[in-house]
Amino acid sequence: MRIAILAIGDELLNGDQVDTNTTAIARLLAQDGYRVRESVAVGDPIEDIVVALQRLAREYDVILVTGGLGPTEDDRTAQAAARAFGRLLCLNDDALVQIRERFTVWGRPMHPRNEKQALLPARSSVLANRRGTAPGFRMIIGEDTALFFFPGVPSEMLPMLEEHTLPWLQQNDQDPTPETRRRFTVYGLPEPEVEARLDRANLPEEVALAYAVELPFVQVKLQAMGSNADRLVDQAELRARQALGDAIVSFGDETLAAVTTRLLITNELSLALAESCTGGMIAQQITDQPGASAILERSAVTYANSAKQDWLGVPAEILEGVGAVSEECAIAMAEGIRAAAGTRIGLAVTGIAGPTGGTPEKPVGTVFMAMVTGTEQRVERFCFSGDRQQVRIRTTCAALDWLRRLALQELASTTESTLTR
Amino acid sequence: MRIAILAIGDELLNGDQVDTNTTAIARLLAQDGYRVRESVAVGDPIEDIVVALQRLAREYDVILVTGGLGPTEDDRTAQAAARAFGRLLCLNDDALVQIRERFTVWGRPMHPRNEKQALLPARSSVLANRRGTAPGFRMIIGEDTALFFFPGVPSEMLPMLEEHTLPWLQQNDQDPTPETRRRFTVYGLPEPEVEARLDRANLPEEVALAYAVELPFVQVKLQAMGSNADRLVDQAELRARQALGDAIVSFGDETLAAVTTRLLITNELSLALAESCTGGMIAQQITDQPGASAILERSAVTYANSAKQDWLGVPAEILEGVGAVSEECAIAMAEGIRAAAGTRIGLAVTGIAGPTGGTPEKPVGTVFMAMVTGTEQRVERFCFSGDRQQVRIRTTCAALDWLRRLALQELASTTESTLTR
Repeated sequence: MRIAILAIGDELLNGDQVDTNTTAIARLLAQDGYRVRESVAVGDPIEDIVVALQRLAREYDVILVTGGLGPTEDDRTAQAAARAFGRLLCLNDDALVQIRERFTVWGRPMHPRNEKQALLPARSSVLANRRGTAPGFRMIIGEDTALFFFPGVPSEMLPMLEEHTLPWLQQNDQDPTPETRRRFTVYGLPEPEVEARLDRANLPEEVALAYAVELPFVQVKLQAMGSNADRLVDQAELRARQALGDAIVSFGDETLAAVTTRLLITNELSLALAESCTGGMIAQQITDQPGASAILERSAVTYANSAKQDWLGVPAEILEGVGAVSEECAIAMAEGIRAAAGTRIGLAVTGIAGPTGGTPEKPVGTVFMAMVTGTEQRVERFCFSGDRQQVRIRTTCAALDWLRRLALQELASTTESTLTR
Repeated sequence: MRIAILAIGDELLNGDQVDTNTTAIARLLAQDGYRVRESVAVGDPIEDIVVALQRLAREYDVILVTGGLGPTEDDRTAQAAARAFGRLLCLNDDALVQIRERFTVWGRPMHPRNEKQALLPARSSVLANRRGTAPGFRMIIGEDTALFFFPGVPSEMLPMLEEHTLPWLQQNDQDPTPETRRRFTVYGLPEPEVEARLDRANLPEEVALAYAVELPFVQVKLQAMGSNADRLVDQAELRARQALGDAIVSFGDETLAAVTTRLLITNELSLALAESCTGGMIAQQITDQPGASAILERSAVTYANSAKQDWLGVPAEILEGVGAVSEECAIAMAEGIRAAAGTRIGLAVTGIAGPTGGTPEKPVGTVFMAMVTGTEQRVERFCFSGDRQQVRIRTTCAALDWLRRLALQELASTTESTLTR
């Protein structure tokens, strides 16, 4: 079954609105094993809608159309559908009843303009909308091309899709191909390296691989079709794990911050942060996670040197000597915050996010990161590329990854000691 | 000039990723008076890309293509473009030089796979990419159909579009319709109130108004066409300013955080923050702005009570009595951070972001905010709706807005005292 989506509205083509409907529809369909082959957006001009509808009806079996069913003049989808397929536009009694019911439920008088929403192409089936005034409709063109029309409001459209389209697809598509999709996130390896490693990892041939870069991450998607898709993807996942190891941050939608916070909580690793160039971004990402208060004791955003001395006890000699952006300062900050907070881990970053402040020896993007735990000390100099925002994000991700790996180590050693006991 | 956009990638059609590129391109074009007639997304199968390219090249004058220029096997756009228009795929020397330069700048070895990114259709012009490895390219088909190919990474694609496509459009399109669009951001008034005020404000009829809610903000768009579009929008803007006053946060793309930081810097208002429930988000947003170090002395993320006592000197009686989420604690935190940092302003927030921690008296969403300046003290209890993330964002916006209004007051009084002097 070849499926396409058509989204209608000037706002989708003038930069005012991101088309999230298409993604939401595609996701819902994918859950049931249906794939979208093409998605199109056109504006409000009726001739543009007519041309798009005609072409898609020629090329696809099912077309899901959103938008342009409202009561105002710039909503022309029903009219365009009638014209595209040579049907009359008629007042549909079922639709009118539904619109009236909606206003009764809301206890509001119906505006005369809303009657326009009951004007549908002849021989359409009305699709009930329990959340808004615009009824949807279905048209069957020729032998077996089905067009579903929905309002553009996501909270109305998605339940209608679930209620009307998914059952129809299941009935009319005798043999939807089972499909298994999974994705995971890799950090710390460039995309070509990820691909090279997976190439050598002997993943089952039937599993399709796709890559997407969302800096500083590489997203890898595994996909298989057919009755044993699940097993194949399981196998592929196992081999990918072996090939990439700890560089895999998470499976599914979990973010690096979520994984890290979860692992810190599980291992009861208390944490204090001292942030200079990231200005609170690391703390912010960790505290985005529910339950973060169990492990984050405090964080110091020490932009000024006085704060570094005052709260973290960074010696004046360091600040006046090698300066605040230095290995020495990062270590002193990490030790200082750990001591002040009395936590297991102290982590500190200091660097130059730009756009100004760089020098030949320490250009913009230079960041020193230090992590101390009482038994261990780690410190590193990074040279991140990109603008201020990117340097800050890369620094934050590197910090979260250090914490993640520390928690994984802890987990491994705890498990080991449990096993040997 | 008929313009279309083609976005390429399975992730756009399986629900994994929202296509924000198309919106961003359309917005950039609209600023220069160009409108997009159609946008299309297809997946990675090469035949789908070929068919879409051929159709769009028949129907449009300019096609902007994004995605599928990466180094991995599922990046097939250049190959599809060659096939669609019967050209050979050749190693482009200019492109190769650019890719190599990129790796030299980064100080990293070039992976052999990146060479693939220099394979372009014959007779293409290379479009430099100063931010990533994938060069773009331009193809001219037949008399005057131009196709521009860009990588899908927004931070690479958008600057390339500005650098390569906009000047080309200006040279090749003699007569774009003048259009003026402007938008502004309102904070602190609900959408119907904004609309009602603007309805009464007598804006020129020729100016179209559109509203979009991006919680907690209302975006208002003004748009006019024709030769005096600029003057009309100027007039509309003036009346909107009168109708909405300080509730207008900014014109154009400037964010609340950017406006606030700019105003604090202009007025030399030094700041220290104490954040509990926002966990660093306020500091993070301020330090996102270049130059923030001029005004932000430090910020304390005091998640634990010990940190509140230790760094901010919040008395134990408050913490044990009314508790950390209280007016008293917010004031003590603001006074404490101001004293510790020696700044003009101390601002503190303490609250319950959820999902747990709420009580009947202080449900999730309860936030106390305090701001002290030495001469003034402001404190308020908020009850924000929404989930953890939304409560944190609403709190951050409220804090930034307090700082913005304080800086505006300061600006007004300085101007006044200068005038009376």
